[in-house]
Amino acid sequence: MKRTSRQRVPVEPRTGARRGLGLDELALTGGFWHDRQRTNADATLAHCLEWMERLGWVANFDRVAAGDTAGPRPGWQFSDSEVYKLIEALAWESGRSGDPRAKEALESLVDRIGAAQDDDGYLNTCYGHTGQAGRYTDLSSGHELYCTGHLLQAAVARVRTVGEDKLVEIARRAADHVCREFGPGASDGICGHPEIEVGLAELGRALGEPRYLEQARVFIERRGRGTLEPIALLDASYFQDDVPVREAEVWRGHAVRALYLAAGAADVAVDTGDAGLLDAVARQWDRSVERRTYLTGGMGSRHQDEGFGEDWELPPDRAYCETCAGIASVMVSWRLHLATGDVRYADLIERTFYNVIAASPAEDGRSFFYANPLHQRSAAADVRPGEVNPRAEGGVRAPWFDVSCCPTNLARTLASWQAYAATVDGDTLSLLQYASGRLKVHLDAGELHLDVTTAYPHEGTVRIAVVEAPEAPVELRLRVPSWAEGATLSDGDAAREVAPGWAATAVRKGDELTLELPVRPRLTWPDERIDAVRGCVAVEKGPLVLCAESVDLPWPIESVRIDATEAPRAEGDGAVVRVFERADPLPSPGAVPYRSVAPDDEGLSAASEVRLIPYHRWAQRGSSTMRVFLPVAR
Amino acid sequence: MKRTSRQRVPVEPRTGARRGLGLDELALTGGFWHDRQRTNADATLAHCLEWMERLGWVANFDRVAAGDTAGPRPGWQFSDSEVYKLIEALAWESGRSGDPRAKEALESLVDRIGAAQDDDGYLNTCYGHTGQAGRYTDLSSGHELYCTGHLLQAAVARVRTVGEDKLVEIARRAADHVCREFGPGASDGICGHPEIEVGLAELGRALGEPRYLEQARVFIERRGRGTLEPIALLDASYFQDDVPVREAEVWRGHAVRALYLAAGAADVAVDTGDAGLLDAVARQWDRSVERRTYLTGGMGSRHQDEGFGEDWELPPDRAYCETCAGIASVMVSWRLHLATGDVRYADLIERTFYNVIAASPAEDGRSFFYANPLHQRSAAADVRPGEVNPRAEGGVRAPWFDVSCCPTNLARTLASWQAYAATVDGDTLSLLQYASGRLKVHLDAGELHLDVTTAYPHEGTVRIAVVEAPEAPVELRLRVPSWAEGATLSDGDAAREVAPGWAATAVRKGDELTLELPVRPRLTWPDERIDAVRGCVAVEKGPLVLCAESVDLPWPIESVRIDATEAPRAEGDGAVVRVFERADPLPSPGAVPYRSVAPDDEGLSAASEVRLIPYHRWAQRGSSTMRVFLPVAR
Repeated sequence: MKRTSRQRVPVEPRTGARRGLGLDELALTGGFWHDRQRTNADATLAHCLEWMERLGWVANFDRVAAGDTAGPRPGWQFSDSEVYKLIEALAWESGRSGDPRAKEALESLVDRIGAAQDDDGYLNTCYGHTGQAGRYTDLSSGHELYCTGHLLQAAVARVRTVGEDKLVEIARRAADHVCREFGPGASDGICGHPEIEVGLAELGRALGEPRYLEQARVFIERRGRGTLEPIALLDASYFQDDVPVREAEVWRGHAVRALYLAAGAADVAVDTGDAGLLDAVARQWDRSVERRTYLTGGMGSRHQDEGFGEDWELPPDRAYCETCAGIASVMVSWRLHLATGDVRYADLIERTFYNVIAASPAEDGRSFFYANPLHQRSAAADVRPGEVNPRAEGGVRAPWFDVSCCPTNLARTLASWQAYAATVDGDTLSLLQYASGRLKVHLDAGELHLDVTTAYPHEGTVRIAVVEAPEAPVELRLRVPSWAEGATLSDGDAAREVAPGWAATAVRKGDELTLELPVRPRLTWPDERIDAVRGCVAVEKGPLVLCAESVDLPWPIESVRIDATEAPRAEGDGAVVRVFERADPLPSPGAVPYRSVAPDDEGLSAASEVRLIPYHRWAQRGSSTMRVFLPVAR
Repeated sequence: MKRTSRQRVPVEPRTGARRGLGLDELALTGGFWHDRQRTNADATLAHCLEWMERLGWVANFDRVAAGDTAGPRPGWQFSDSEVYKLIEALAWESGRSGDPRAKEALESLVDRIGAAQDDDGYLNTCYGHTGQAGRYTDLSSGHELYCTGHLLQAAVARVRTVGEDKLVEIARRAADHVCREFGPGASDGICGHPEIEVGLAELGRALGEPRYLEQARVFIERRGRGTLEPIALLDASYFQDDVPVREAEVWRGHAVRALYLAAGAADVAVDTGDAGLLDAVARQWDRSVERRTYLTGGMGSRHQDEGFGEDWELPPDRAYCETCAGIASVMVSWRLHLATGDVRYADLIERTFYNVIAASPAEDGRSFFYANPLHQRSAAADVRPGEVNPRAEGGVRAPWFDVSCCPTNLARTLASWQAYAATVDGDTLSLLQYASGRLKVHLDAGELHLDVTTAYPHEGTVRIAVVEAPEAPVELRLRVPSWAEGATLSDGDAAREVAPGWAATAVRKGDELTLELPVRPRLTWPDERIDAVRGCVAVEKGPLVLCAESVDLPWPIESVRIDATEAPRAEGDGAVVRVFERADPLPSPGAVPYRSVAPDDEGLSAASEVRLIPYHRWAQRGSSTMRVFLPVAR
């Protein structure tokens, strides 16, 4: 395995032949992710900083530095983590594009957080200072190690893009502090919200510091033994303290916690060669994807605990599908893909990128979905500009939230999107995500440069020109998504059909390849055990989940029944389907809505054609009602 | 309108001709409610007292009395209310049956709570004393007025059964205190949890004190104007502070709060002759029953805020349907029935009594359902005996809860069940609920005594013998439930069909009547707009909702499909239906559970007959899975 000395990637396992693409190895030139990454750089990063300045979340660090902590402190106990996630986003953006605005904002923030670090490396603005609760006095809810984990991830972005700087020094001292406080002979506690594990593991990799990996391992092993003080009305599964990681069969409880934990466990498993632990995470992924995952890739069925529900509990209306859980799912799948090369992980990453992560930000990058339901029954109230949204309801993108984890999480993910686009293994380049751009990748045999041109996901044609290639034969593998039955690859004169999975071909300089993915719209049926969408069908188009939005419908959304005997027809970035109106009378006044008479087919009246749009851009034309799964006309 | 000087009823409007049955006017002699009322008296009342002694919720009063409040206080801030609800239950039980155990327990509790009352009438063990937060410093969450409301309701039970005693004196002082603190020129606050309104209104009625009604009116009018400090992550609709009561169209937010508020508003509307306010409550009832009510009568679709969802949001699995919300729904429907005489309110009361309230207590009266879902996907973990249950999940009856509002609420409701069984209006007696027993009712024209003999709800025959009747003709009206198409009434030689609604007949001494209600099992179809049960059907039998429970099934519950072309057959207290097994393969490992292939009918294999049991007695044979709505075989 060869690597450049400083790989610009968020995840770099110590073992294994496969590595992710460095952010500098793919220059996007246009299209879906290029545009979102640019909006992120031009709008979202500054937007997040403005809000955190306005609310005093950054100034919390100044107050600690000044010893002025006796008064009330704005923000939740975990607000420091938002500053760190923004720093991480700025680090990736600055490191990838060289954007001086990002660099300047980052350095200013680093100065301010650094000034708040205690002499022994502890860094938190909510605990341990005058007028505050003591350090680590509330491991269940305090989020101190969670915040530190995000600090370490931010530092990883810095090590991997510019090398060791002030941020890295701050993070090293914080990590050393954690190892002292929670290492052998010290506290045997764990944090209610996993994140420190993934942060320690990756910073350990980035700095070559085995103590950090070991501390991550210890946190993983300690978990699941019921040591966390319960939080009122929630049980231990909420923070995965019910079953040890290596014994668990499925993800459960708070989705982001479950997934950050799984990501950390995968890191530890890979670096320590712990096949049993890696198998456990892969097994949990299998079952959770089979039975606890939405069509969008969204995870988390319950609002109550922001959590996974039970197997088959996938209500479209109350789907929580937190944006952060989508990001965390990508984190886990990415680690499993690097460890195993299994294409299924990349399939889920694509599904989640297009239908959860891309759904969250508004076109202007200044407001965000927190929850991502698949059915909006009544139009959400508009957000008042400049106001913090207190609730994570569906249907409205808000500029900021009381608990505002998603915007900065999006920012760091969009800024580092390239990392997930391909892997390199010896003399093989595997393309996982399709976007127009130039790849310049160092293989064992030499440099491979590709120009990729595509309007994916709206069109299925992906043209690849081999601009530069080693003399020795190198392999190019193209991911054929699981939905792409009938895809073809032409790498010369003839086109051949390529099955879902991998389409591999040897390439030489001057080769021109064309992958044709069938992105025509298609009907997608839910498993019979998903009770909440029985009798319904969805429409997908390539990697995009489509939806019906009220602004495109002639009738109230609850009256629409789809004609599933006709194939949907492509139109624009969406599709057109034939629907009927089911004009149910209102129930009798004050009678319960249950009858002794079976509903009959004669309830169907007018027919119409309606447009379905990509789910990721719903609610961009004002507040609306929406559904992904449409009841089938009988 | 004639009344006895002390009507033994929980609700006695100041205006209107109709009155509820006094608890002393109906002696149950056997059957469904008789048995439950006896278990309540013999087991539940003592059980509640034991738990509250064990947990220190009663001793909280002793500590206030002793001035010993500096240390930690057990229980939530609203635990006083459980003591008051138990006192109310003891008062009704003692007043109805003369049970000396209930009287003794009551008097002891009253002594202890009385000792904790402050000189100015304030009575609360969580606020206002050494080491505690100040009085009324947290109206949103403090529940002080809520607790007081339950104290007043307990006192009403006492006034109406034995007259003014020490409890009534305590309550009067507490109510006077509330009027001083929240009346004209004083605080303009309201309580986050409605209940004081209904307590003040009824105590005002019981004591003839118009100031209490006026204060209730003021609280109702103040609400809905956004004056309550928001609770984190919840908006003002949670505690109905979003829209004034008389402007609201539907119930929303926390179900128990919404319903207690509606009950109080109905009381105020009736007693002040405020037709607009009464119309508003009736309108909210109409729409909420039409679109936000479960087949069981249960209300509250969401765990997150224990709240109503939106119109048509009625998931069977995550149905919260809190037992207390069922009780509160009866409270509202009862007030509306007294005010209007509309039979629909009595229909919903019956539905709720049999399928929510009766479901909660275990057969031994020592454990209780808190939530009452209509679908249990995986068997709940067993409750460890003697442990407080931290969570209100479905599927398990627990002896006590961390928030334990339901057991004492059940106790007071079961102890006063007779009150809802009939109404009296001049020379008309209207029978609303059917149970074996003797009615001795005073009509304008004289005494009417009936002997009722029935095995209802398991059989549909109700025999009524007129043992005593005035010389002048008096009318007997029998409620024919909305489901009872084809019912017959024979009041002499011939039987005549009686339509749902009222079957009225003049009665004289010596008459014998037989009402035949068709309690054969029947299929019941949900409105097409209830997405969560599309493609499913339920089975009801008389007033009972039936369910399939895993212990009666040959296959996992998710594989069962009902043959809806065959009528269900009666068997025991339930029914037998024909079902098929749908043996779906598991999805491919790690693939999302969505396919391009439509599910086909060939998935159906083995057929079988299975037994459905009344919903109210599910989970009595160990932990199980269950569903009310069964997917229909295609």
